[in-house]
Amino acid sequence: MSYAYDERIDGPLPSHDKAALVAELQRLVPSMQLLHDNEDLRPFECDGLAAYRTTPMMVALPDSIDQVQALLRFAAARKVPVIARGAGTGLSGGALPLEQGILLVMARFNRILHIDPEASIARVQPGVRNLAISQAAAIHGLYYAPDPSSQIACSIGGNVAENAGGVHCLKYGLTVHNILKLEVLTIDGERLTIGSEALDSPGFDLLALLTGSEGMLGIVTEVTVKLLTKPQSAKVLLASFDDVEKAGAAVAQIIGAGVIPGGLEMMDNLAIRAAEDFIHAGYPIDAEAILLCELDGAEADVQEDCDRVGAILREAGATGIRIAKDEAERQRFWAGRKNAFPAVGRISPDYYCMDGTIPRRELARVLRGIAELSNEYGLRVANVFHAGDGNMHPLILFDANAPGEMERAETLGAKILELCVEVGGSITGEHGVGREKINQMCVQFSSEELTLFHSLKAAFDPDGLLNPGKNIPTLHRCAEHGAMHIHHGKLPFPELERF
Amino acid sequence: MSYAYDERIDGPLPSHDKAALVAELQRLVPSMQLLHDNEDLRPFECDGLAAYRTTPMMVALPDSIDQVQALLRFAAARKVPVIARGAGTGLSGGALPLEQGILLVMARFNRILHIDPEASIARVQPGVRNLAISQAAAIHGLYYAPDPSSQIACSIGGNVAENAGGVHCLKYGLTVHNILKLEVLTIDGERLTIGSEALDSPGFDLLALLTGSEGMLGIVTEVTVKLLTKPQSAKVLLASFDDVEKAGAAVAQIIGAGVIPGGLEMMDNLAIRAAEDFIHAGYPIDAEAILLCELDGAEADVQEDCDRVGAILREAGATGIRIAKDEAERQRFWAGRKNAFPAVGRISPDYYCMDGTIPRRELARVLRGIAELSNEYGLRVANVFHAGDGNMHPLILFDANAPGEMERAETLGAKILELCVEVGGSITGEHGVGREKINQMCVQFSSEELTLFHSLKAAFDPDGLLNPGKNIPTLHRCAEHGAMHIHHGKLPFPELERF
Repeated sequence: MSYAYDERIDGPLPSHDKAALVAELQRLVPSMQLLHDNEDLRPFECDGLAAYRTTPMMVALPDSIDQVQALLRFAAARKVPVIARGAGTGLSGGALPLEQGILLVMARFNRILHIDPEASIARVQPGVRNLAISQAAAIHGLYYAPDPSSQIACSIGGNVAENAGGVHCLKYGLTVHNILKLEVLTIDGERLTIGSEALDSPGFDLLALLTGSEGMLGIVTEVTVKLLTKPQSAKVLLASFDDVEKAGAAVAQIIGAGVIPGGLEMMDNLAIRAAEDFIHAGYPIDAEAILLCELDGAEADVQEDCDRVGAILREAGATGIRIAKDEAERQRFWAGRKNAFPAVGRISPDYYCMDGTIPRRELARVLRGIAELSNEYGLRVANVFHAGDGNMHPLILFDANAPGEMERAETLGAKILELCVEVGGSITGEHGVGREKINQMCVQFSSEELTLFHSLKAAFDPDGLLNPGKNIPTLHRCAEHGAMHIHHGKLPFPELERF
Repeated sequence: MSYAYDERIDGPLPSHDKAALVAELQRLVPSMQLLHDNEDLRPFECDGLAAYRTTPMMVALPDSIDQVQALLRFAAARKVPVIARGAGTGLSGGALPLEQGILLVMARFNRILHIDPEASIARVQPGVRNLAISQAAAIHGLYYAPDPSSQIACSIGGNVAENAGGVHCLKYGLTVHNILKLEVLTIDGERLTIGSEALDSPGFDLLALLTGSEGMLGIVTEVTVKLLTKPQSAKVLLASFDDVEKAGAAVAQIIGAGVIPGGLEMMDNLAIRAAEDFIHAGYPIDAEAILLCELDGAEADVQEDCDRVGAILREAGATGIRIAKDEAERQRFWAGRKNAFPAVGRISPDYYCMDGTIPRRELARVLRGIAELSNEYGLRVANVFHAGDGNMHPLILFDANAPGEMERAETLGAKILELCVEVGGSITGEHGVGREKINQMCVQFSSEELTLFHSLKAAFDPDGLLNPGKNIPTLHRCAEHGAMHIHHGKLPFPELERF
């Protein structure tokens, strides 16, 4: 597998006598469940990026902070890598195990510790499911805003690790904008309290630094999230277009008019047909593109925005506009979008989901580029995306059993991400870098910037034991990848001449 | 002065032959203006925290990135500290010079480079004034949201360095929530591009890490900010209370009801009388407290929120509620609040402005605590604050010419900040730590957390040349200060036994 940990490229890992380590850890923390038989380990060999699999050396399932602390101190002393895992729903392989490492599963930390409706906050353990927070807060008319598609299953700890988004993050922000405080254990087992319930914290912004750090800086043991009041009203418009670029232009015009929709999503014809065939959402299957635009807030405000958006859509050349007539139709419109990935899964043996983000004004150009790349590589691409915030999820259709197709899909995916960077965007919007996009980081960042990332990593974890080989590539990997990041006219990676 | 750099406590600084350094720098960067005569240096000896003054070794006023780069490389090679300064309006002494250091004034980087109305962003140089961005964007119906009271004068670079807020940050966020991208020079003169115009950036969140880092990690040379559409309508309610605690409770109820006002400000009787006497805003001078609540957004939405907030205020025991009848009265209501600091300046020879942040539910308790401390130290305290986000600005009135009063004011201020930390808040909301609150950082953070901050600092600036002695105290300083931060039951600073 091209993306497995490669010691030659990613740096050497210590080798250990597994049996001795297991015995020692069992003796040290007898109360903690520890899996080490190959059969028990199999369910943990991948996360949501199922194409990449590695069997971990062992899996720890602690249920108390003392246990995690003891485990980390043991790992630090014995120099054993530790890979944290929440619900394992991540799409970039951030929780992909290492053969030489302990997989630290935080799923048992699943208690909602406190909800304070007056302060509109909830304090929860990291293994609590995203949706469970909103369900528990519903009695107070509150909810937790970020809503990744996996919200039924994914855990808040994993959301923090990946800085997860969702269809509403245009208006309500990513995870980092919706959390206030973290309790974190360092690799040495030190407990840190990061952030506060207050508006701002002095010192460097460790809360933001930890969020999205993919388990490389510390292990989150508690999360304090902001809760929002449920919007009074919500309406969804479904607009059809006979041209993908016109739909892209309409997105820019809606945002440019100062409307901030709760959600603003786009799907192209291939995605529309797949979703309609699966969900019967009532989508127009002959449209080249549709936009779904949700407006939420106070009743009167929603009606006014609805009128404005309708006018903009007509002006932008929409061939049809429908407003969901009731809550059932609104749910149906969204069900099509939210099930677009499995729907595409029905029309292709395999698909590969990308997660690039681009400035909105480049939507049309990037869509053209993707169409050209799709032709060049001979693979179909369905486009489904959070159009409002420029976060694209091109789905590359392939057949892993057809010789060479998987490699072609990977290369096509990499080209699409490089195109995103070229137009001033980035290689991830909400899924993280993980193992999947490690090579594209060489395109996104200069060697100076990567060196700085490594220094920051070392400030938390000098021996590099937390989730090694993910998120931040070694300079050596970038040299191997032949990265062509040109930074302010300098040659890329001049310091790599020593390799 | 108790807060001057103390090499014994803050760590040794290299000593230099000033004349030789000036000559060398002039030779290296002949085009850059460099001040070194004592008379020329005097205007730069303090920032907005005027009580603390130090004459810098020299003042550099570069006007190109090449010049800044050359200056930084020189400073790194010669181990000369560099203190960056924007407009010098900061209130925590973040730009207080060092006798052994170069003051790097970025005021000449004052160009707005590009406004993109479709993407709603502006790319500006760091010396551009905060208000100038909104003025330039007004033609497109856009504005830059964070509005510190000093917005006429303060620069966006300084706003980034201090993560500045303003009366609207409850709804619209701090600086960190309103910027997308930074160009930064490291102490070695390396150019870094941090963040992107896209929603999210992969890798560690350096954008947030740099924001509020008070010039300790790098020098900002360009800022890309988000612009917002001007709200269609805005109304202000002025509510009077016969009891400060009732006003505090009303704040929690407004937010708890899910209304997010554009601004929600509170003033106590001393502040009301001072402001009314100065501005004639129409404030009720016999009220124990007033709340100013601005609601903005779509017309219909604002009216609805206005009705809701009115009902909540009545329920909470407001003795009177007025709605500004027109734009002129709205401006007058705000003018009283925005001029509260100079108004207090008219009734006391000196005042000392604090900047603590607390969870909203603790408002009443902290107000009681401040009243008790005010009695104990025999100094009047006027309370003016961003009530909605729990950011308090107690103004301690004193006379610097009365023996011991300044020291008493300092101690009283420190006690107030410690009270903020005690209730789960923090020692700064929007003014930064700078030199002023360096000792209180020992109360806010454990030695492990401070050690981590120092490691992060070292990742950017291993020789500690950027703004030394600000923001993050040495562990030695905390030991001297006798900090009593008890962290998870451990003794504070056990590792300081070696000192």
